[in-house]
Amino acid sequence: MKLKLVRSDETLDDLQINGICIIQKKNSFRFGVDAVLLANFAKIKPKMNIIDLCSGTGIVPFIIAGKTKAQHIIGMEIQKDMVDMATRSVIFNGMEKKVEFIHRDLVDFEFLKKLQKADVVTVNPPYKLKNSGITNAQYENAISRHEICCTLEDVIKAAKVLLKDNGKLYMIHRPDRLVDIMYTMRKYNIEPKLMTMVQPCVNRAPNMVLIEGQNNGKPFLKWGVPICVHKLDGSYTDEIDRIYGRCLRR
Amino acid sequence: MKLKLVRSDETLDDLQINGICIIQKKNSFRFGVDAVLLANFAKIKPKMNIIDLCSGTGIVPFIIAGKTKAQHIIGMEIQKDMVDMATRSVIFNGMEKKVEFIHRDLVDFEFLKKLQKADVVTVNPPYKLKNSGITNAQYENAISRHEICCTLEDVIKAAKVLLKDNGKLYMIHRPDRLVDIMYTMRKYNIEPKLMTMVQPCVNRAPNMVLIEGQNNGKPFLKWGVPICVHKLDGSYTDEIDRIYGRCLRR
Repeated sequence: MKLKLVRSDETLDDLQINGICIIQKKNSFRFGVDAVLLANFAKIKPKMNIIDLCSGTGIVPFIIAGKTKAQHIIGMEIQKDMVDMATRSVIFNGMEKKVEFIHRDLVDFEFLKKLQKADVVTVNPPYKLKNSGITNAQYENAISRHEICCTLEDVIKAAKVLLKDNGKLYMIHRPDRLVDIMYTMRKYNIEPKLMTMVQPCVNRAPNMVLIEGQNNGKPFLKWGVPICVHKLDGSYTDEIDRIYGRCLRR
Repeated sequence: MKLKLVRSDETLDDLQINGICIIQKKNSFRFGVDAVLLANFAKIKPKMNIIDLCSGTGIVPFIIAGKTKAQHIIGMEIQKDMVDMATRSVIFNGMEKKVEFIHRDLVDFEFLKKLQKADVVTVNPPYKLKNSGITNAQYENAISRHEICCTLEDVIKAAKVLLKDNGKLYMIHRPDRLVDIMYTMRKYNIEPKLMTMVQPCVNRAPNMVLIEGQNNGKPFLKWGVPICVHKLDGSYTDEIDRIYGRCLRR
């Protein structure tokens, strides 16, 4: 009966964390290593309330729900069919009390103000500027990758509205946007406190950056040891095996 | 006779670039790997005019003079005895036509405005905030390491005054100040264009950052492959050997 929740153009993927599964479209935007890295980078303490922006099919909320003692996790997403899939994943996993998805535009700041303040906001936003690079032919892919529905500034403004005083923002993004990220975070007084670069392998420049910001935090930026995704032979590094092991294999 | 230029409390160190030597105090601030990395990071084309701020005993100007076809290099330094040493190094090396040192406070913006505009400004500024950490007992060491005489913002303002349109600023700094650096560079419209992190070794977080900024440049930040200084056994990596080889061994 549960399988009726999954449609013919969808797959059901086992996250291998307490049996949690996630519904995704076969031929559309599917979660990648970036979402997994983000969910592992966020420091979640017991009873925390989390809001995940640009939540897609809900990969970050489901990993956090599976591996932490968070109180409640809201995933917010502008694409209705993704929210629909994520909500069916909630039902499939019997997680109605812990995880909730909301179909809402994050620039609806009046709505955001009405939500309970969050201890942590996570976000894996669209990386690319609206008119930069090739826009995906499929519109839902394009929305996930390009700043069509929200800009970086919108995301940071939304986090500002949602976070408690001293609450944390965790974001993964492209290093080429780092000046924009730092400038805008400081503009909204969400001070970058920790950064970890992610490299495809040890002899390549970083292609992702993990950032922790603190709402109304004081300036001082700590750095983590860079994460390399692959060994020189193309296989995953021990570290990535360990991260996947922690969140996807248990 | 040339050796009379060197005093009893000083050493004469051979940079092993065309026989260039540099005079340094035995027991005071001596150049480190950061200055060598900075001098190698800066892209200097033939006939360029360079100004090096916080120049100390002149290590960056002498490396650039030795390994590039720069037209003219000015080193500016607030500590009179360092300018005196650097000027004696110029005489020792017979470089009066190419390298010049000026004893001047870089916050003397009216003076800076009178200088010929530079293609490139290099700077290895004091890394630490004025009242942070332990201040060196020796005042001249403290000036080189803490923002006693100039702040990061002073340095960037000075570069703004000195640079041609599209001229480049090359800086080495501590990663914990990166938000300040990026925020302030963008504030003065010197856009960060290239960043390379420097790690003590592959399994340690970065402890230095090399930044190229462009006066009135457009936003887009490229990243270099991180530089590791040591192998896991503590010896220099091939890359550092190569950098030293290029600038210090010829």
